[in-house]
Amino acid sequence: MLEKRGFTAEVMATDGAPVVFAERKGKSDKTLLIYNHYDVQPPEPLDLWLSPPFEPEIRDGKMYGRGVSDDKSHLTARLFAIDSILEQDGELPCNIKFIIEGEEETASEHLHEFIKQNMDKLKADACIWEFGGVDHREVPMQYLGLRGICYVELSVESLGTDVHSGLGGSILPNAAWRLTWALASLKGVDERILIPGFYDDVIQPTARDRELMDKLPDFEDEYKSRYGAKSFIKGITGGIDLKMEEVFTPTCTICGITSGYQGVGQKTVQPARASAKVDFRLVPNQKPTDILKKLRAHLDAQGFEDVEIQYHGGEPAARTDPDDPFIKIVVDAATDAFGVPMEIVPMIGGSGPNYPFVHDLGLPVATMGHGYPDTKAHAPNENIRLDLYLKHAKHMARVITEFAK
Amino acid sequence: MLEKRGFTAEVMATDGAPVVFAERKGKSDKTLLIYNHYDVQPPEPLDLWLSPPFEPEIRDGKMYGRGVSDDKSHLTARLFAIDSILEQDGELPCNIKFIIEGEEETASEHLHEFIKQNMDKLKADACIWEFGGVDHREVPMQYLGLRGICYVELSVESLGTDVHSGLGGSILPNAAWRLTWALASLKGVDERILIPGFYDDVIQPTARDRELMDKLPDFEDEYKSRYGAKSFIKGITGGIDLKMEEVFTPTCTICGITSGYQGVGQKTVQPARASAKVDFRLVPNQKPTDILKKLRAHLDAQGFEDVEIQYHGGEPAARTDPDDPFIKIVVDAATDAFGVPMEIVPMIGGSGPNYPFVHDLGLPVATMGHGYPDTKAHAPNENIRLDLYLKHAKHMARVITEFAK
Repeated sequence: MLEKRGFTAEVMATDGAPVVFAERKGKSDKTLLIYNHYDVQPPEPLDLWLSPPFEPEIRDGKMYGRGVSDDKSHLTARLFAIDSILEQDGELPCNIKFIIEGEEETASEHLHEFIKQNMDKLKADACIWEFGGVDHREVPMQYLGLRGICYVELSVESLGTDVHSGLGGSILPNAAWRLTWALASLKGVDERILIPGFYDDVIQPTARDRELMDKLPDFEDEYKSRYGAKSFIKGITGGIDLKMEEVFTPTCTICGITSGYQGVGQKTVQPARASAKVDFRLVPNQKPTDILKKLRAHLDAQGFEDVEIQYHGGEPAARTDPDDPFIKIVVDAATDAFGVPMEIVPMIGGSGPNYPFVHDLGLPVATMGHGYPDTKAHAPNENIRLDLYLKHAKHMARVITEFAK
Repeated sequence: MLEKRGFTAEVMATDGAPVVFAERKGKSDKTLLIYNHYDVQPPEPLDLWLSPPFEPEIRDGKMYGRGVSDDKSHLTARLFAIDSILEQDGELPCNIKFIIEGEEETASEHLHEFIKQNMDKLKADACIWEFGGVDHREVPMQYLGLRGICYVELSVESLGTDVHSGLGGSILPNAAWRLTWALASLKGVDERILIPGFYDDVIQPTARDRELMDKLPDFEDEYKSRYGAKSFIKGITGGIDLKMEEVFTPTCTICGITSGYQGVGQKTVQPARASAKVDFRLVPNQKPTDILKKLRAHLDAQGFEDVEIQYHGGEPAARTDPDDPFIKIVVDAATDAFGVPMEIVPMIGGSGPNYPFVHDLGLPVATMGHGYPDTKAHAPNENIRLDLYLKHAKHMARVITEFAK
């Protein structure tokens, strides 16, 4: 598809899935880098799909299929935007490069290294991110930062075998207790993370961040009904405090724990093994490798040398300045495509591989796309709305044109 | 089998599995009550059995099958002992009663109530327990006490659904964290249980207990190799301290924990639900219902009203005096049957339904049987040694004769 549009395209090896890189020169010296990915989430559970996940089907103005939203039709909408420019002008107004990776759904394990090894090739002036879209009010949103992440598995093996809880269990070390105490040492009931130095590198949000967050709609009622929550943590009730807390505070989340007997009723056994998955969401300028070191030092200092840490990957947070001129281009162009002004979200709580784009390549990164709240990315019946697909393509054509000037 | 031997036998209903009660009068006024059970553990995993679990097979002087050791051939050995007495004397030297329940493997849920409702029927002067046997040195052991137990499941439901750990997860309550903190509030790293009043009713072991425990062989090396342990808790290295700790200290054991993602690698989810199985082993005079109340009060006082407690059953500890005359009869008779003197263990760490026999019926309870370390009760290839089976029958005949005098 890229070569048909006059791009030189290569499939470049990494230590994991290959990266597709493509480039076409344009009239001006400016270069726009577009990031997408070709991998998708597994389609299971299959029985919940109304049409087969890999046979795209259009019903009621939506196209259904695994990967239609995340992330294949973001790519095709962008190619159609390029078609429209080429049809009208016969050439591109600026240089456009595509970087399309195959590991976005599995933590982009080799992307950072790929970027470091291809700095010249990827040189650009601005970057368009893989996703974007409208919120529940149909307002297009500009998401300018992603939190980092440090994902670990903590595990303890206290014995070679499980043991009767009434016999040796009384005097032998219990893996489930060791893990419980180690976990409890990481964070207090007040949600304060107790690893020494954990907050050292945290950069506090600015007045401008707070101003932008304050403009966004409140969501306490929506969250309570969507997630069945009675209350929020730290006694926060809603409003700006809740919005700030969701994205500007680093976290330590237990994602799962497993140990011993988990069936019905009682089994009087003392477990030999226990493990927990823990993710830390990081804010600028925390670094996952630094957090990993501090975690190990903390566990050792607390007497938990028996707790092993397996690192499942991570990436630092990264943000783009809301007042960057490129962001203004993307935001202004949205009004024409979507009919309403785009709103700016300085940071979101999720994570993604934007760090090397922002910090290695030094680019402003803007989000734009056809996402919407019911797009069901990662879930059965993933879909796109055709009206938003068209709006995203229009938005893209306008952004390319304005950026080239 | 009981009726063939002149017993009047009845199958008596309970709210669970029925109890078999049988009785035959004898020459003296004394009455011996024998406790057994007819239920067995499930045979799974089936593929590990060398012969089908419910087709008893004799190989190399052992009989294999589910329930042969726990507890069917304890019952049959006792019947054969009675046969030998009847063959010689034509009558029993004392009254003998059997109580054979069907819920021993599922915490004897209805036995205590059954005993309370049949106090007259069960009236006796002494009781023989369902099990007993020799240790790894082939020395017959007299186990005189069982710890109590209070088994609970603690669970938290913080949300209606799991949530993305990077988004709502930052501000919504995490069930795994709530459970971890609640568990950590129950016991310190020093193994001290922190529930107020937990130790209030504990009766300390006597000098006689310590003297008896001191005579028993040390087991630190055996435990370390059998369970793959590097060390014991509380810095105890072995000897009498380890032996006392194993049975005379009440415990709080996490038997299992389950929450959230437990598969391979990472999933960035915040769990809505978490639960743990916890057993408390109790010593005299702690009561499970009292511990349950104190646990609830503690969790509430610590702010864990959201942690639900499900009670999976319990029973108090109970002990027989090592210097009771009936114990002397059983111990003395063992030398003749086993060829070596029986040793007295004042208390073991496990639990069982001996409380109503000791405290409601007021009986001394003696253990005797054909158990041995490789009998594999509850495991595949459960077996009995035929030589020990015969010794147990001989021991039984001698105990009945001596007791009747």
